[in-house]
Amino acid sequence: MSIIITGANGFVGQELAAALLAQNPETTVTLTDVVAPTLPTAAAAHASRAKCVQADLTSSKVVDEIFNETHRFDTIYLLHGIMSSGAEANFELGMRVNLDSTRYILDRLRAVMPGVKVVFTSSLAVYGVSPPGFVIDESNLPPVPLTSYGTQKLMVEFILNDYSRRGFLDGRSVRLPTVTVRAGKPTQAASSFASGIIREPLNGQKSEVPVSRSTELWICSPYTVVKNLMHAREVPKEAFGEFRTVNFPGLKVTVQEMLDVLESVGGSERRALVEDKYDADIDAIVQTWPPNFNTTRAKKLGFSEDMSLEANIRGYAESL
Amino acid sequence: MSIIITGANGFVGQELAAALLAQNPETTVTLTDVVAPTLPTAAAAHASRAKCVQADLTSSKVVDEIFNETHRFDTIYLLHGIMSSGAEANFELGMRVNLDSTRYILDRLRAVMPGVKVVFTSSLAVYGVSPPGFVIDESNLPPVPLTSYGTQKLMVEFILNDYSRRGFLDGRSVRLPTVTVRAGKPTQAASSFASGIIREPLNGQKSEVPVSRSTELWICSPYTVVKNLMHAREVPKEAFGEFRTVNFPGLKVTVQEMLDVLESVGGSERRALVEDKYDADIDAIVQTWPPNFNTTRAKKLGFSEDMSLEANIRGYAESL
Repeated sequence: MSIIITGANGFVGQELAAALLAQNPETTVTLTDVVAPTLPTAAAAHASRAKCVQADLTSSKVVDEIFNETHRFDTIYLLHGIMSSGAEANFELGMRVNLDSTRYILDRLRAVMPGVKVVFTSSLAVYGVSPPGFVIDESNLPPVPLTSYGTQKLMVEFILNDYSRRGFLDGRSVRLPTVTVRAGKPTQAASSFASGIIREPLNGQKSEVPVSRSTELWICSPYTVVKNLMHAREVPKEAFGEFRTVNFPGLKVTVQEMLDVLESVGGSERRALVEDKYDADIDAIVQTWPPNFNTTRAKKLGFSEDMSLEANIRGYAESL
Repeated sequence: MSIIITGANGFVGQELAAALLAQNPETTVTLTDVVAPTLPTAAAAHASRAKCVQADLTSSKVVDEIFNETHRFDTIYLLHGIMSSGAEANFELGMRVNLDSTRYILDRLRAVMPGVKVVFTSSLAVYGVSPPGFVIDESNLPPVPLTSYGTQKLMVEFILNDYSRRGFLDGRSVRLPTVTVRAGKPTQAASSFASGIIREPLNGQKSEVPVSRSTELWICSPYTVVKNLMHAREVPKEAFGEFRTVNFPGLKVTVQEMLDVLESVGGSERRALVEDKYDADIDAIVQTWPPNFNTTRAKKLGFSEDMSLEANIRGYAESL
C-alpha cells in the first residue's frame, strides 16, 4: 500500500501519517508539505517506510514531479490548504492553494494514474448560517459558504464529484468538523481557539476565548477524525451513490461546556488560565459555521463518532 | 447605459440585445461572440447604438482588450458557454469555456471595473435527479450536478457569490429553465429538441422526439426569459441577501402536452411531422433535470412567469 499525504506537516496530516504507518507493515507513506515535513515522533519506528518531501504544490512542475507514471499511489490524501482566517485575509493565496493547486493535482492524477483514489478534506465551512435549530444533512440544505475558504472547499468538492462521475478519479470529499483538541501551536484557522482554550491551560499557559461562551461548535477529536480519514479510503465507491461528499460525525458543544469539562478534567487553576477576549473577525467567521448535523449518511458509510466531550478532553490530557 | 453581452450570437443573446436596445434610447450594447456576432434584424433601427465584436474569450489577451480601464460598462451579461451535450462530449473545452474563461473575466472585471454588475446565466442543470414529486426551491435541495455543464455552471455561481460577498463585483446568477420555443437552428444543448419539436413542424419540417413523451420539462418562453434577464440587473443587490442566485420561473410540462398544443395551434398535419426517435445520450442528460420548482424567491425578487404553454407556442407561431 503506497499512500501520499499533502499538507502532511499539519496536525491532522501528522496524526494520519503515524496512524497509517502503524496500521499496516506493508504501507509506505509519502509526506509532502510546503515546509520540509518531518516524520511524527510516534512513527519513528516506521521511518524506513516513510518519505518526507518538501513541495510547493502551487508549482505545476513540482506537482508533475511528485505525481508521475512511474509510481502509482493507492490513495492520495489532499490535506494541504490555507485555513479559514488565512484565506479570508489573503484571497489570492487562498484561491491559488485551496482551489488551483488542488485542481491541477486532480488533472495531473487523472492523466498519470487514472481512477486513483483521492480523499479530499473539506469542511463544515461550506455551509453558511443555517436557520436556528435546523439539523443539517447532506441532502437538505444547499451550502452557501460565507467565507472564501468554504467557497474554495466547495468548488473542489464539485470538481471531484464530476471527475468521479466521469471515472477520471475515485474521489471522496469529507467535511471535517472543528478538530479539537489539536496538539501543537495555534493555526490560521478561525477555529484555532477551540483547541487553544483546552490545550494551553492543560499545558500551564494562558488562553483567550474570542467568541461568546454560548457559541455552539460542531467538534470532533483528532483520534476520531484520523480514524475516519483512514476509513474514507476503505468505503466502496458505490456506497457513495452520485454524491462523493460526506459530513463527518461530530458533537455539538458550547464553548461554556468545553470550559466546564476543562475544569473538571484539569481543575480550577487550569480553568482560571482562560480569559474572555472578544475578537470580532474570528467571531464573524465562526458564526457562519452551523453546529447541528444529522450524521445518518456518515454512519451508514461506516464512519465513527466520538464518545463524549469529556472523553475527548480527557484523552488529550492523558496524552501529555 | 452601456451594456455588454458575451455569447451574444446565441439565440437568447440576440433577443436580449434587441430588447435592451429597444428599451432605452440611451442604451448602447456591445455584442461579443466567438463567431463574428451580427446585430439581430429586429434591432436594425438601433444599429448606431450597437457594436459587434468577434472575441475568443478563452484568450486572456482578448478579455483584457474588451474589458479595460478606459470604458466602464454598467452591466456585463455572461451568456457565452458550451452547452450541455457539448460540455459532456468535450470535457476540456467545457472547463475552458464555461469555467476558466468566465473566471478570468470576473478577475479582470474586479481589477478594471470593481463592483460592476454581472448577470451570469446558470441553469437548472446544476440540480441532479430529485426525489419524485419533490418541489425545489433555492434553499431546500443541495445541487448535485450530474453533468459537467451543470458542475461548471455551479462553480461559477459560487465564485460570483464569493466575489459579491467580498464586494469585488455585484453578481447575479440566474438559473434558466429550458428556453423554448427558440427560433433558429438546433443547438448542442441536450434540450435542443424541446424547441425543435415545435419549431420545425411549424416551419413545415420534420422533427424527432429523443425522449419519452411522459418526460417532464421545466420550460420558459424566450420572451419571459429575456424580460427576466433585463430585470436581473434592476433588482437591488440587497434583495438577494447572502445568496446571489435565483431559479427563474418556468412551467412544468410533459413532452406529450407540448405535442398536444402543437396540434391545437398548428393542426394535425404539423403534428404529424414529429416522430419518436429515442436517443439514449440525450435522454440520460434530460432525466437529470428536475421539472418541479417553487419560484417564490424569483417572484419576490420581481421576476415574471409565462402565462401558459399555449400562449408560449402560439406566440412563436404568430412570430413566423
